[in-house]
Amino acid sequence: MRMYDLILKKKNGEELSTEEINFIIENYTNGTIPDYQMSALLMAIYFQKMNDRETADLTMAMVNSGDVIDLRKIEGIKVDKHSTGGVGDTTTLILTPMVAALGVPVAKMSGRGLGHTGGTVDKLETFENFSVAMSEEKFIDNVNRLKIAVSGQTAQLVPADKKIYALRDVTATVDNVSLIASSIMSKKIASGADAIVLDVKVGDGAFMKTVDDARILGREMVSIGKNVNRNTIAVLSDMDQPLGLAIGNALEVEEAIETLKGNGPKDLEELCLTLGSEMIILAEKAKDRDEARKMLKEVIENGKALEKLKEFVASQGGDTSVIDDTSKLPKAKYVVEVLSEEDGVVEKIHSDKMGIVAMELGAGRATKESEIDLAVGIVLNKKRGEKVSKGDVLAYIHSNDENNIEKAKKGILDNYVISENYTDNIPLVHDIIR
Amino acid sequence: MRMYDLILKKKNGEELSTEEINFIIENYTNGTIPDYQMSALLMAIYFQKMNDRETADLTMAMVNSGDVIDLRKIEGIKVDKHSTGGVGDTTTLILTPMVAALGVPVAKMSGRGLGHTGGTVDKLETFENFSVAMSEEKFIDNVNRLKIAVSGQTAQLVPADKKIYALRDVTATVDNVSLIASSIMSKKIASGADAIVLDVKVGDGAFMKTVDDARILGREMVSIGKNVNRNTIAVLSDMDQPLGLAIGNALEVEEAIETLKGNGPKDLEELCLTLGSEMIILAEKAKDRDEARKMLKEVIENGKALEKLKEFVASQGGDTSVIDDTSKLPKAKYVVEVLSEEDGVVEKIHSDKMGIVAMELGAGRATKESEIDLAVGIVLNKKRGEKVSKGDVLAYIHSNDENNIEKAKKGILDNYVISENYTDNIPLVHDIIR
Repeated sequence: MRMYDLILKKKNGEELSTEEINFIIENYTNGTIPDYQMSALLMAIYFQKMNDRETADLTMAMVNSGDVIDLRKIEGIKVDKHSTGGVGDTTTLILTPMVAALGVPVAKMSGRGLGHTGGTVDKLETFENFSVAMSEEKFIDNVNRLKIAVSGQTAQLVPADKKIYALRDVTATVDNVSLIASSIMSKKIASGADAIVLDVKVGDGAFMKTVDDARILGREMVSIGKNVNRNTIAVLSDMDQPLGLAIGNALEVEEAIETLKGNGPKDLEELCLTLGSEMIILAEKAKDRDEARKMLKEVIENGKALEKLKEFVASQGGDTSVIDDTSKLPKAKYVVEVLSEEDGVVEKIHSDKMGIVAMELGAGRATKESEIDLAVGIVLNKKRGEKVSKGDVLAYIHSNDENNIEKAKKGILDNYVISENYTDNIPLVHDIIR
Repeated sequence: MRMYDLILKKKNGEELSTEEINFIIENYTNGTIPDYQMSALLMAIYFQKMNDRETADLTMAMVNSGDVIDLRKIEGIKVDKHSTGGVGDTTTLILTPMVAALGVPVAKMSGRGLGHTGGTVDKLETFENFSVAMSEEKFIDNVNRLKIAVSGQTAQLVPADKKIYALRDVTATVDNVSLIASSIMSKKIASGADAIVLDVKVGDGAFMKTVDDARILGREMVSIGKNVNRNTIAVLSDMDQPLGLAIGNALEVEEAIETLKGNGPKDLEELCLTLGSEMIILAEKAKDRDEARKMLKEVIENGKALEKLKEFVASQGGDTSVIDDTSKLPKAKYVVEVLSEEDGVVEKIHSDKMGIVAMELGAGRATKESEIDLAVGIVLNKKRGEKVSKGDVLAYIHSNDENNIEKAKKGILDNYVISENYTDNIPLVHDIIR
């Protein structure tokens, strides 16, 4: 088999066989196939596309390029949740104790984030002494006993994806749905998931700008799941404004705790109920969405979800006293109001740009070496569809540096689009693809 | 300017500006742009194409990537001729003395061939002691005095093309008409041509398999010529069978000498008259094709073309006695008849496969290091449309190695397609594009 012939085949619009796809991924990962042939193939794939069978094969070839986590020692159906990236998205912190409280095993391998705010691991480290370092035995034992554990990724998961993604990033071949879908799905499958719930963000602040594009990506990932025997569901959710109110690490942890107490922002709670329902149905703990929602609401009302968070944080060495008293969370030195300069209705809040403002305050990492300031960020006070008058508080800046407040203020004002008349009719959940 | 953005632009079907194309070629040639970005761009060009303006700009950017031969010291309009590759194509050896005899300056930079038979330089070295090594002064003086000189290429012509061609060759991006056309035209322009006659071969044995494809390539090259002020004409000629009868170095030299004496194969003579007419019209030595053909026939009949060949060979140190007595040319030890095994009419002679048989006899180079045996090759005895009976001689094998004769015989028989009934109606010249 020669890479040249496989490039030619795809260029001519033909289908690549399973064997051919395995050959490409294996030999590109081990360096036998050079970058210049791979980038030519990626561009040919962009133009000629891959069908569902090829995309599933590509996904599994990437999974098999590195370590695959074996979670068979954990009882029950392991359901993982993945979000395609958003701003102020605190769902993981809320969802995992909720579903664990209902007996769904949550065995998460999480990394640190590179972006607007930290990743799940960064946020969990807001609990003093919390640690993701643990042996495989302890990890498995924790999940079996408590139904929840989060470990820092140490295994070499999907090296093919790392290498291919880096190449796509510099050759303008990122935006092919088969390549995006196989990249996401391969990581979830290599992490040991039996079933997957995807939260595909749609809108201005997301990778997928339109519902149509998000639907195509969602369908592709659900199709991969079917093809490789991992039940997969994709929820298309709105990212035309940040989810919830908090953007920042400790701020999001506080928001998560409040939501688990039943006092969270409505959109955030609603999305957690939607995603959580799909998770517990896939885990076969509920038979339909009505039952699932009822169960999820119950564990909020009776405090079992919050109790699960405490158990979980304690089991990994973290200080749980902040859960009872969130005033003990890291606080920023300055909390500054951002006041509206006009009258009207909030029509739009540019999510990704708002994320950048938070990152510039220190909430996120611009490079791998950056240090995160857990305390800083933004808390929104007005969301889409709300009326505002001149002088009303639009948002609060939480900062530890006096000098960056003015810039953040300007950034936040720029990202609020206020118009005379506007009625919000963008749904939180656009569609659910099964 | 970033290569990433230019790949994206072309991927999206947009036009690249002159400045952008110059940036790409300059920085790819000097190694700033890596192969993997260039191959992604080439694949995007394959799918999205380039327009005439972009193709002309690409051509000139490649020309300017290396040395450009300055032939301004040579009087008259320098017309170069280029063939897109064929088998048994002896036209250069015949055409150059013919047009030089009519006062058209022929200043050729030629290389050694890598293929079925040697290049023009290899063939000229059949004349003992002939040398292509000479100073620029002597080269220019010879052309001004005799109207003809052939120099071995020493200048670094079109390094961008060498690098891009090598990359296209391994990434399945050879077959884009803009890339093919700019590659050919850039070399001719860098060699100092004022005007160009292209012989675009069509058929089974050629790069362009159909007249339509050849016409597209011809049009593209003529368009480049117009855009960069080099009058260019493309003749689409048949390569569904080898041109003439001889395939091999000394064998083709002998055929060229015979053609200059008026005893050549009709198809070879006819194509030389066609191409030669276009050349002397472009050189402004004749006003129309009728006049041009008459002039060319005259220099054959009155011996001036043959005389010019002698003058030329002598001026570069070669032994001219073989021109009067071709029996003194290098001869193979074995000359073996290949007899037809059936009755019928020759319907097809697979040119490229016939070329490979000749190469395997030692007439061509498989790799840069191979040595050419000037004496060996094939001489056809029957061509398309001719009747043959079982036992008739189809061709002669000229070999210096007894052991390769059987294989060559089998190869030749396989390459002759003989059918019961066939009337040849494929024209020698399909079209001329101006």
